[in-house]
Amino acid sequence: MGLRPSPESLRSLFWPRSVAVLGASNDPSRIGGRPIRYLKEGGFRGPIWPINVKGGTIQGLPAFKTIDELPEAPECLIVAVPAAAVCDAVEAAARRGTRAAVIFSAGFAEADDQGRIWQDRLVAIAAETGCRVVGPNCLGLFNSRHGYAPTFTASLDHGYPKAGAVGMVSQSGAYGSHLFVLTRDRNIGMSCWLTTGNESDVDVADTIAYFADDPDTKVIAAYVEGIKDRDRFLGALERARAAKKPVVMMKVGRSAVGAAAAVSHTASLAGSDVVYDAALKQLGVHRAETTEEMLDVVYAATRGIFPETNRLGIVTISGGAGVLMADAAERHGLDVAPMPDAAQARLKAILPFAAVRNPVDTTAQFFNDMSLVTEFTRTLLGDGGYGAIAAFVTAIPRNRETGGRLKDALAKATADFPGRLLVLCMLATSEMTREYEAAGYLCFEDPSRAVMAIAALSRFGRSFARGAGSPPPALPAGAKPIPAGAALGEAEAKALLATAGVPVAAEKLARTSDEAATAAASLGYPVVLKVASPDILHKTEIGGVRLDLADAAAVRTAFAEIVAQARKERPTARLDGCLVAPMIKGGAETILGVIHDAAFGPVVMFGLGGIFAEVLKDVTFRIAPFGLDEARAMIREVKGFPLLDGARSRPKLDQEALATALAALSVYAAANAGRFRSIDVNPFIVLERGAVAVDALIETT
Amino acid sequence: MGLRPSPESLRSLFWPRSVAVLGASNDPSRIGGRPIRYLKEGGFRGPIWPINVKGGTIQGLPAFKTIDELPEAPECLIVAVPAAAVCDAVEAAARRGTRAAVIFSAGFAEADDQGRIWQDRLVAIAAETGCRVVGPNCLGLFNSRHGYAPTFTASLDHGYPKAGAVGMVSQSGAYGSHLFVLTRDRNIGMSCWLTTGNESDVDVADTIAYFADDPDTKVIAAYVEGIKDRDRFLGALERARAAKKPVVMMKVGRSAVGAAAAVSHTASLAGSDVVYDAALKQLGVHRAETTEEMLDVVYAATRGIFPETNRLGIVTISGGAGVLMADAAERHGLDVAPMPDAAQARLKAILPFAAVRNPVDTTAQFFNDMSLVTEFTRTLLGDGGYGAIAAFVTAIPRNRETGGRLKDALAKATADFPGRLLVLCMLATSEMTREYEAAGYLCFEDPSRAVMAIAALSRFGRSFARGAGSPPPALPAGAKPIPAGAALGEAEAKALLATAGVPVAAEKLARTSDEAATAAASLGYPVVLKVASPDILHKTEIGGVRLDLADAAAVRTAFAEIVAQARKERPTARLDGCLVAPMIKGGAETILGVIHDAAFGPVVMFGLGGIFAEVLKDVTFRIAPFGLDEARAMIREVKGFPLLDGARSRPKLDQEALATALAALSVYAAANAGRFRSIDVNPFIVLERGAVAVDALIETT
Repeated sequence: MGLRPSPESLRSLFWPRSVAVLGASNDPSRIGGRPIRYLKEGGFRGPIWPINVKGGTIQGLPAFKTIDELPEAPECLIVAVPAAAVCDAVEAAARRGTRAAVIFSAGFAEADDQGRIWQDRLVAIAAETGCRVVGPNCLGLFNSRHGYAPTFTASLDHGYPKAGAVGMVSQSGAYGSHLFVLTRDRNIGMSCWLTTGNESDVDVADTIAYFADDPDTKVIAAYVEGIKDRDRFLGALERARAAKKPVVMMKVGRSAVGAAAAVSHTASLAGSDVVYDAALKQLGVHRAETTEEMLDVVYAATRGIFPETNRLGIVTISGGAGVLMADAAERHGLDVAPMPDAAQARLKAILPFAAVRNPVDTTAQFFNDMSLVTEFTRTLLGDGGYGAIAAFVTAIPRNRETGGRLKDALAKATADFPGRLLVLCMLATSEMTREYEAAGYLCFEDPSRAVMAIAALSRFGRSFARGAGSPPPALPAGAKPIPAGAALGEAEAKALLATAGVPVAAEKLARTSDEAATAAASLGYPVVLKVASPDILHKTEIGGVRLDLADAAAVRTAFAEIVAQARKERPTARLDGCLVAPMIKGGAETILGVIHDAAFGPVVMFGLGGIFAEVLKDVTFRIAPFGLDEARAMIREVKGFPLLDGARSRPKLDQEALATALAALSVYAAANAGRFRSIDVNPFIVLERGAVAVDALIETT
Repeated sequence: MGLRPSPESLRSLFWPRSVAVLGASNDPSRIGGRPIRYLKEGGFRGPIWPINVKGGTIQGLPAFKTIDELPEAPECLIVAVPAAAVCDAVEAAARRGTRAAVIFSAGFAEADDQGRIWQDRLVAIAAETGCRVVGPNCLGLFNSRHGYAPTFTASLDHGYPKAGAVGMVSQSGAYGSHLFVLTRDRNIGMSCWLTTGNESDVDVADTIAYFADDPDTKVIAAYVEGIKDRDRFLGALERARAAKKPVVMMKVGRSAVGAAAAVSHTASLAGSDVVYDAALKQLGVHRAETTEEMLDVVYAATRGIFPETNRLGIVTISGGAGVLMADAAERHGLDVAPMPDAAQARLKAILPFAAVRNPVDTTAQFFNDMSLVTEFTRTLLGDGGYGAIAAFVTAIPRNRETGGRLKDALAKATADFPGRLLVLCMLATSEMTREYEAAGYLCFEDPSRAVMAIAALSRFGRSFARGAGSPPPALPAGAKPIPAGAALGEAEAKALLATAGVPVAAEKLARTSDEAATAAASLGYPVVLKVASPDILHKTEIGGVRLDLADAAAVRTAFAEIVAQARKERPTARLDGCLVAPMIKGGAETILGVIHDAAFGPVVMFGLGGIFAEVLKDVTFRIAPFGLDEARAMIREVKGFPLLDGARSRPKLDQEALATALAALSVYAAANAGRFRSIDVNPFIVLERGAVAVDALIETT
């Protein structure tokens, strides 16, 4: 595909000086008529050139019969003609100087083989000319900052976007419109909105990268069904994080039925859902399960405050609501830490019956004395060390008189703490809510949703502070590449991993039972014997492993039995003899693995051995490569973690050795992408000091 | 407390023929003024008697100076005077004939010792006179069916309740008001609303039971912080289920901080949260995590359709939304089962590019031809066997013209399927939404919330169909009661459980090593030896267990060692010798346990042994007693279930024997409530045929 154009190249898409609509219609409700209507109604200041074979006047504008008749190449071309006519038109315009094309037309890769051929041609045109192509089969876009809305979504019938901080991109046109309407209904301003359709050229990653650079866009929202280019996708998310712009993403297709439907709906490679989870977690993206969650987090993020602590202070006029919010805080990982004793004593002195620990409860006494809200809130802000304060004030703001007094009381509390996050759980008219928002507060009706949003802001804050975390370690100088196409035995797999920095158990290859006994003596008893053959991948299944052999006699017998067993079960397998290794006792069995994901390439898995991984699916994933910070996070997030950390009177095991091995494996896997289908280090035994791979398997490509 | 009055006794609370307000105020914004104002504004038809020591006229009504001056006893008395004056007034009225009293006044058990004494007196007055007492420290109630709203919540300032199907009860006044406002804002009608305050007499259970009997109440919503009487609480929920009335409950105090705050806020015994989970699950209650979830389910339940299948059909005009809804369905336990082949073929014939499996996708073609929605929806309804259909139609209904056409298209599809559930995911004005609702559809903006609500309706449907499930088995005739106060050894504990129908391993008590060897020979080798002492509860900790003893010599040695060890570690313990039992191999270790919960009494726990219970907390609970159906459900719902069901080439184990033991244990525990603190059957080994308790511990009270 050659070098990708920079995000800056999307400027012609969002800020063109001139625009032409190919297939323009005089009927403002038709696909070729709506963009002209919206451009006019939005007050777009550049020339708008309708193109229609019939010429004449279209929605009051003089129409051109062909692109060639235009006075000059439009910076952006909107295309609403049948699929068969699209490629020639886009190529002609691009060669004349058009820098962006938005193709509404359907009938491309989503339809049939002919459509796929046409779409490939669009890809080529974009690559050759540098003209950025959106769609085909898309619903268009808007840039609310200059009344530019070349789209045929009917959603603009009910109201124009309000300019603001949110950049939104959607792979689904219809759902993108749904999201736009909900966003507008919540009075959230937007900078840009784009639907990417079939993504022949411009895709979600390009758009996120553009939003990361766009100074007016402060919050990025994306609806995603699948991605095609891991590096650009991850790069765009990293660019957004570096710019401290939160990304809120719905990635659908989580369920089996959903993923099947997603594939039939787009041409994207969906990737395994757990891998998306891993990638988004690594990049600090908030993955929203529901549309409402997405908009709640987007709304909260527009406030632009991202606390770096997860400590939450709660002030309430109802004990019940305080309990409910503390529950929600625990669910979402926020810490309802108690107030310092001195601050508690001060509040007790003001109101003896009040709860003052956190949640702090002014009780109904608040209705008689609103200064309580000032005192309690100010104390939480000043003394609690909280990243955010949530205040439950129910319908007080609904009444203009009490609502005004409450606003004054809060203003007194917050005056000395600019830039601190105060979130109100309140019921009010939309006018009064606007007034509270203008005063700097976030407003939610449902206290649980308020707490969820605060938790998301705090995760963003910590992700921005952390950045990419510790970098992946360097690949060891002596690391040997995986020989693609070769069948690798256990010994070879372990030897390769050892060069990569993954510690492996000492072992010797024995071709005879005498050699086995000699090797065992030098390694020290007890030992393990395992069949050595590049053609036998699953040794246990054929009885090719003997454990805990205590002396030379046992070793000789085991050698003979293993070889006989292997000859019987796999008569055609090459047989090198047996591997002799020390029997490792104690510690905990873990599994380190790497899969090659269709969307994301090498993905590292970690889990505890046995039932944890296989029955409980208690495993976690990260996109390779990664550094020690991510490796440590992986270890801590499996449910079986207590077994590594001293649970049930066990010794505390060497988690740092494990983390080091995980990071090393991730770097090796990334360096060898394409050469293997999977890597299994199972078991990888974590000891009190150190850790060691006892078996390993590399399936090469 | 004597016999509790029946739910019918609350009729005087909700439907009094006359009402007096003690502490009445001429100021309609004050606590004693608001109820009079609301009663007048609501159009309450019975006499309203203000009582105020000053007499005169109050809000246009002639006032009385004392209760004695009233022409007759009011059927309901509203009390808004200081705490010290409350008891005498309520007693005087009750003795004269008042049948219900609602006490707004604070300063009772929530405040101090004096308040607690007054509250106890209210309890006694209610018990002696049969007058039902609400509060103290409550916000009152309303019954929207006869304009009866004796409450001082300010929420009625912004609008009266609309009469309808929802009965709501809240232990929190402020949060109850918050819930009422949100319910009214969503245009959901309510029959009654009650805040119970300190619950001196009328509590949440009474109110739920009343709603279960009230013909106009179809859906019950409750906000709960804690309960005091398990039997009435469970009885009320069972009464609601028998009446096929869904109960939606927020039970707050889930988190540690939240539970602590709940206790400081009410005087309730909060109970362990997992036990509430268990109880609510058993009774088919929907436990809502958030306020919004509560109202979504309440709203959906007002439609009155509760499918008995979890199969969901999805029709969409956007592939993306279909994927999103399929994801949500999986998350909430709905089955997006495919359409029958013939039906798929029929839809393909109508629209070749459509997805027709389920979700079915009309594609944007729908905009040109709305009959597609008719055909697709009708086919889902007629051929899919779905319990509910969810349709994504985004902003189509927002436009009056397209909205009207869509409504007609849907009416054609649903005409032949009355009583079937069709849920629309749509954006519209509230007027248009009302029209769609009047046509019989549920309307949601967020498709994920729509799917969540459908899942709740389907769980209600299955719970109503199932009812209480199989009844608890009878207590065996020979079951011996737990001797409260006695210290029980392992052998005695197992002997008791054996009489209860819990299978226990054969074992013999040996007082000497010779007896041990003889016992072992008769039981068959290998055997296990365990120290036998009523004073040593945790045998393993003192080295009091020896496993897998293969012959008489090993048994004699082990006997001597165990006895010596016990003498050394627990010199004062009574020592009976050793228990000899067959060594049981194979099968899976499970744990059956019973705790005595402060709120719910005996609660049975089930989990797999070892790390599952202790590290992973993979356990489940049920309120005792229960039958085989619940026992089977417990077994299937732990994450480790595959280990009992043949995972990883294991044999399939005897789940029915396990279920039988769980149900028997639950019945025994219920029959012995109060006699024990805990019962532990650990391990309870489930074999391929049968199951057996190997160790047991009963801590008596």
